[in-house]
Amino acid sequence: MLLKLKIFLLLIVCGVCINVNAQTQHPIAFATKADIEYIKANLKTNALLKESYNEIKKSVDEWLDKDVDVPFPKDAAGGYTHDKHKANYTLMFNSGMMYQLTGDVRYAKLVKDIFIKYAALNPTLKNHPQATSSSPGRIFWQALNDANWLVYTGMAFDLIHDYLTPQERKQIAEGAFKPEVDFFTHDLKNWFNLIHNHAVWACAGVGIVGIATDNKDYVDMALYGADKDKKAGFIAHLDGLFSPDGYYTEGPYYVRYALLPFYTFANSLNNAKPELKIFQHRNSILKKALDGGLQQTNLNGGFFSYNDALKEKTFVSNEIVNAINIAWQVYGANKDYLSVAKAQGRVTLSRGGASIATALSTTKNIPQYYPYKTIEFTDGAAGKNGGVSVLRSGKGNNLTTLIYKYSSHGLSHGHYDKLNINLFDNGNEVLEDYGAARYINIEQKWGGRYLPETKSYASTTIAHNTVVVDGKSDYNGSEDESEKHNAFRVFGGINDSVKVVCAKDTTAYNNTVLQRSIYMIDIKETGKPLIIDFFKITAETQHQYDLPFHYLGTFISSNFKYNSFLTKQETLGSKNGYQHLWKEGDATKLPQLSQITLLNNGTFYTVSSVADDSTKIFFARVGANDPNFNLRHDPTFIYRKNGSNQTFLNVIESHGKFDPIAEVSTRAYSSVKKMEVLYNDDAYSVFTVTTATRKITIAQSNNNNNSNAQHSIKLNDSIIEWKGAYTIIF
Amino acid sequence: MLLKLKIFLLLIVCGVCINVNAQTQHPIAFATKADIEYIKANLKTNALLKESYNEIKKSVDEWLDKDVDVPFPKDAAGGYTHDKHKANYTLMFNSGMMYQLTGDVRYAKLVKDIFIKYAALNPTLKNHPQATSSSPGRIFWQALNDANWLVYTGMAFDLIHDYLTPQERKQIAEGAFKPEVDFFTHDLKNWFNLIHNHAVWACAGVGIVGIATDNKDYVDMALYGADKDKKAGFIAHLDGLFSPDGYYTEGPYYVRYALLPFYTFANSLNNAKPELKIFQHRNSILKKALDGGLQQTNLNGGFFSYNDALKEKTFVSNEIVNAINIAWQVYGANKDYLSVAKAQGRVTLSRGGASIATALSTTKNIPQYYPYKTIEFTDGAAGKNGGVSVLRSGKGNNLTTLIYKYSSHGLSHGHYDKLNINLFDNGNEVLEDYGAARYINIEQKWGGRYLPETKSYASTTIAHNTVVVDGKSDYNGSEDESEKHNAFRVFGGINDSVKVVCAKDTTAYNNTVLQRSIYMIDIKETGKPLIIDFFKITAETQHQYDLPFHYLGTFISSNFKYNSFLTKQETLGSKNGYQHLWKEGDATKLPQLSQITLLNNGTFYTVSSVADDSTKIFFARVGANDPNFNLRHDPTFIYRKNGSNQTFLNVIESHGKFDPIAEVSTRAYSSVKKMEVLYNDDAYSVFTVTTATRKITIAQSNNNNNSNAQHSIKLNDSIIEWKGAYTIIF
Repeated sequence: MLLKLKIFLLLIVCGVCINVNAQTQHPIAFATKADIEYIKANLKTNALLKESYNEIKKSVDEWLDKDVDVPFPKDAAGGYTHDKHKANYTLMFNSGMMYQLTGDVRYAKLVKDIFIKYAALNPTLKNHPQATSSSPGRIFWQALNDANWLVYTGMAFDLIHDYLTPQERKQIAEGAFKPEVDFFTHDLKNWFNLIHNHAVWACAGVGIVGIATDNKDYVDMALYGADKDKKAGFIAHLDGLFSPDGYYTEGPYYVRYALLPFYTFANSLNNAKPELKIFQHRNSILKKALDGGLQQTNLNGGFFSYNDALKEKTFVSNEIVNAINIAWQVYGANKDYLSVAKAQGRVTLSRGGASIATALSTTKNIPQYYPYKTIEFTDGAAGKNGGVSVLRSGKGNNLTTLIYKYSSHGLSHGHYDKLNINLFDNGNEVLEDYGAARYINIEQKWGGRYLPETKSYASTTIAHNTVVVDGKSDYNGSEDESEKHNAFRVFGGINDSVKVVCAKDTTAYNNTVLQRSIYMIDIKETGKPLIIDFFKITAETQHQYDLPFHYLGTFISSNFKYNSFLTKQETLGSKNGYQHLWKEGDATKLPQLSQITLLNNGTFYTVSSVADDSTKIFFARVGANDPNFNLRHDPTFIYRKNGSNQTFLNVIESHGKFDPIAEVSTRAYSSVKKMEVLYNDDAYSVFTVTTATRKITIAQSNNNNNSNAQHSIKLNDSIIEWKGAYTIIF
Repeated sequence: MLLKLKIFLLLIVCGVCINVNAQTQHPIAFATKADIEYIKANLKTNALLKESYNEIKKSVDEWLDKDVDVPFPKDAAGGYTHDKHKANYTLMFNSGMMYQLTGDVRYAKLVKDIFIKYAALNPTLKNHPQATSSSPGRIFWQALNDANWLVYTGMAFDLIHDYLTPQERKQIAEGAFKPEVDFFTHDLKNWFNLIHNHAVWACAGVGIVGIATDNKDYVDMALYGADKDKKAGFIAHLDGLFSPDGYYTEGPYYVRYALLPFYTFANSLNNAKPELKIFQHRNSILKKALDGGLQQTNLNGGFFSYNDALKEKTFVSNEIVNAINIAWQVYGANKDYLSVAKAQGRVTLSRGGASIATALSTTKNIPQYYPYKTIEFTDGAAGKNGGVSVLRSGKGNNLTTLIYKYSSHGLSHGHYDKLNINLFDNGNEVLEDYGAARYINIEQKWGGRYLPETKSYASTTIAHNTVVVDGKSDYNGSEDESEKHNAFRVFGGINDSVKVVCAKDTTAYNNTVLQRSIYMIDIKETGKPLIIDFFKITAETQHQYDLPFHYLGTFISSNFKYNSFLTKQETLGSKNGYQHLWKEGDATKLPQLSQITLLNNGTFYTVSSVADDSTKIFFARVGANDPNFNLRHDPTFIYRKNGSNQTFLNVIESHGKFDPIAEVSTRAYSSVKKMEVLYNDDAYSVFTVTTATRKITIAQSNNNNNSNAQHSIKLNDSIIEWKGAYTIIF
């Protein structure tokens, strides 16, 4: 849920903040009088700022002297009443801003008139008729949107505070705000006290209304929870939702969303309660959260789509414009943000926004891309709940990014994707994470909500690029159970040309240990890394292990024959996500080195895999059991093995180019000639990959990852000795 | 088949050509000595020209003093020997050019050494082992590629002509060229004498070799056919392959390809035989061909994909760079070409190229898009074989383009698509033409050839957006039969806000008359046209009529319930293309006004259709019977009606926007409220479309399209009177 129009967020410069009396000086929630004067001065010379100003003024001017509808809530997301209330809070905030910047009281009157209508409406509201979630809204179908409403109308109230008579202030505070705040902090108290992105919004809403209406009670509940016991509230969110290095437990799609209330409320607190030093809290955790979120994007700015996520969402969204503009001001100018700000092409009407706009116009050679790097995040408030490694190779448009996820569940938007990998190359998603099934704000698609297929398919283990045991999702798809556990990193090492991460999970399936080692090795001749993926499973009894590769692009060829389902298709299974996969082909007799070549946006990719006698492969496609045509029909192939202890050894290779305009294809074939698992037991695994030009042997210790430990293993014809968790022999 | 590297084509300025003795002065095939001097002078100051020069020089310099492999032909397209021979002819031409521009004899020697190898190889060749077509090649799998070889090596020979000794010239002419020319003009004489794009290449190859080797016999065969009787050859191609307004009968994808030999050979002839006035031939038909080809592109420069076509192909391809650079010179500077040249970002090393490069750097405000307009093409040498209407509305990125095809078959690359429509909007293909199934030059995909699915699916009638009678393709899929006939335009009218075209086909199905009227009406409020599509079928006996809408994008909603095939899928039929469609859903009880809404790249589209009691609908998806995963899985819905005389009345509407980043959707619902066929017989049809804001009534005369004819028809409650073929009443 987000704003249609530009959001103005103004900052007071820390240190020059004259906090004479936070209870009486307004505006203060998003900007002070001094800020307003600063903006007014800058508008005269700053073209980008002026552009934003003009656009917003135009959108507000359309409504001057008009009667704005405040309809009785009826429709789901995308419907009239939903969109109207959303448009109203945006209009109120923008009009309040125009009042401050122009001094024209017609803007203030516009805001007041709408407020008076809400003051009459809100006390009459019960739960929204379209409410389906456990946290129903009143103005909107879900409470989250009511929280958005509080954030913006709170700031709007603050902007026209001094225009209103005390009687009007009381009327609005008691009629428009109190029913909503009471609803949140009493009726939905459990929800308000959650540690979750929705509750961040709720705290921000209640807190900003508190600051705007001089209501200390509200501010305290916002900061410390409905019971003010510090077990919930904004500070608890800052402490609980991020790992020490800024990883947000719900993942990058939701950190983007959460950054809006986090930064907006923090900015208000920075103005109204500077003694909190909120931006410095927890070693500047809000800066780490922003930078970490940006590192979790693709070259086009799209947030990695693990957990519930919509792939269209990029860092040009308002939330990140707002966060970067505030961060620029409170954390200091940071050139890394300029490539992002340039892509955004707009700034907020704030000191930070004005400053970044100036930097954009004066800085030469702003890089095209954010300075992406290899980065490993821990998960959990103490950084003890696994994590996510983002392994990168190559520069500029030639970037290869391998995402390896071994984190905790990620709250209600988490997926059952332990040890999942996801590959981006040259700006394209190649091995994909489906994300979520949702058409946000398109009313015809289930009111714009998450579609049922998000749960029944997108969140399941088979929808990911990781091993599925016995056709079931991790923790048998129980969110409660999954929330209790996490995978964890076992060993690894990052240097310029080799990136290694091994992680393990012991909880997703009973009596089954999953361990996946990723070796990303740069190959100078090709300028692309070879990704060696060794998945080792340890179990006492026989199981079925499925390892899918969900890809985007076109199947080009395989080095084996398969059976195709030409005139009839059935589903791959009946539950746990398998019911959504059409079985398009299969093969049971596979060569020891099985290879599948794909084409994605002009680049060839080959997945080379070691097959044994038990190995089958399925070619499948998403789209079955989809009565409302909600799913994308993305293809996948799935290696299936049986056994107790088992391994999957794969090499993922980006090679060659296809230029359909010049009609040239180069290096269209894999360079991998041979692959072999030479040794595998609880203690050690040894495997080799031979390409046209080199032989790579990797030996790893599976139970002693001490960096000083000495290991030695005797193979048929040689002895390998090494120190530390692994060795790579070229 | 095309060139990997930049192609140099140089022009002599008409009028200053000093044609002392065309038989002895070399170079002349692609440029004269004077041209070479002009290029050399311009290289000093023209950055873009210099850039192309440097790039080509670099690619040639790599091979200096090296032994270049001339392998015995073995592989299909994409394989080593194929790519090597292609690389060789490019290298030879480029190296010849470098010899002329630098005077360094090492370049000439490089060309000569390769020629000597071909002179030894070519006399030993039989048909290529991978030859599968009726026109086998010798150096390559198909003769077409051998023709490409002749064009470039002919020009290469000409460039080093004066460096070679008479003995060497003889050795190459007899060893390298004669076996190929003899093969074309004797063994493949029937193919050489076809009127077809392959034969254009063959003529160009033989003709350029003739000019380069001073062989008048070759030149005459190239101009007038193997028998020199003017029934075939280059002149016959200029007269026979284009309509008087420049429409190329194979369609835009192939005009792009044909423009390369047409312009290249014409340029050589312009140098060597200026008395032919080849560029002025037939009212400058080559200019009309180029301009017509450009009008048949989408905003991204992609050629419309009707007939066999690959959608990736755009006007930045070498063929169009070459054509525009030559046209700029011989037809005069034309600002319309600048947006295209800018998108191409490169020029040929020629006078035209140098001149257009200068214009690019000195012209301010070059428009982003080619000046697209509504244009109607006739087909056939005399313009009597139907045609194609390209109806356009809107400007810049907001362009809507409706393509309506009622042409002849289009030779061997034609499809069975009589009365097909195809919609582009905002630069996106919305109602799609599948194009062809082919991965050009990817060896793994059947040697890069047209895949079998091109014939079995892409060319069938059901793969198009037009009526299929009794589940069969037009002419029952017989190319011979289809070649004999064409559809034809009945009436129409184009003005700023209303575009009308009605066309008819009487031959595709026995005793069945198909007539389709398109009314594209601009709606001021929305800035988008309403496309009213009235398809009238007249037959004496009962038939099944299927009207598919193949779309790109996402199904959003329908206003009726349908049955989904959730766990099993079967094909829609067993032949004529139906075997490639998975049946995903169907419905038999449809509301009189049936509506389906789609989303394509952020814009909503609704197809509103009138259903009767016989009407069924199928939701289907391409991809069945596809053992090698060659097909794209594009979706379609198909209205099926039964009857003898029948009508399909549809409205195609572009409405609203969805912005997934701002999470806003606007006007997500169709504005169409009611549609009705009020009257329909052999003489007249009357139908109405009612939207939220207006009622549109259209009356058309079906058998008298005289513009002065007076018509009158009495309906239940009114009389409509009009003059001319149709009237639109708002």
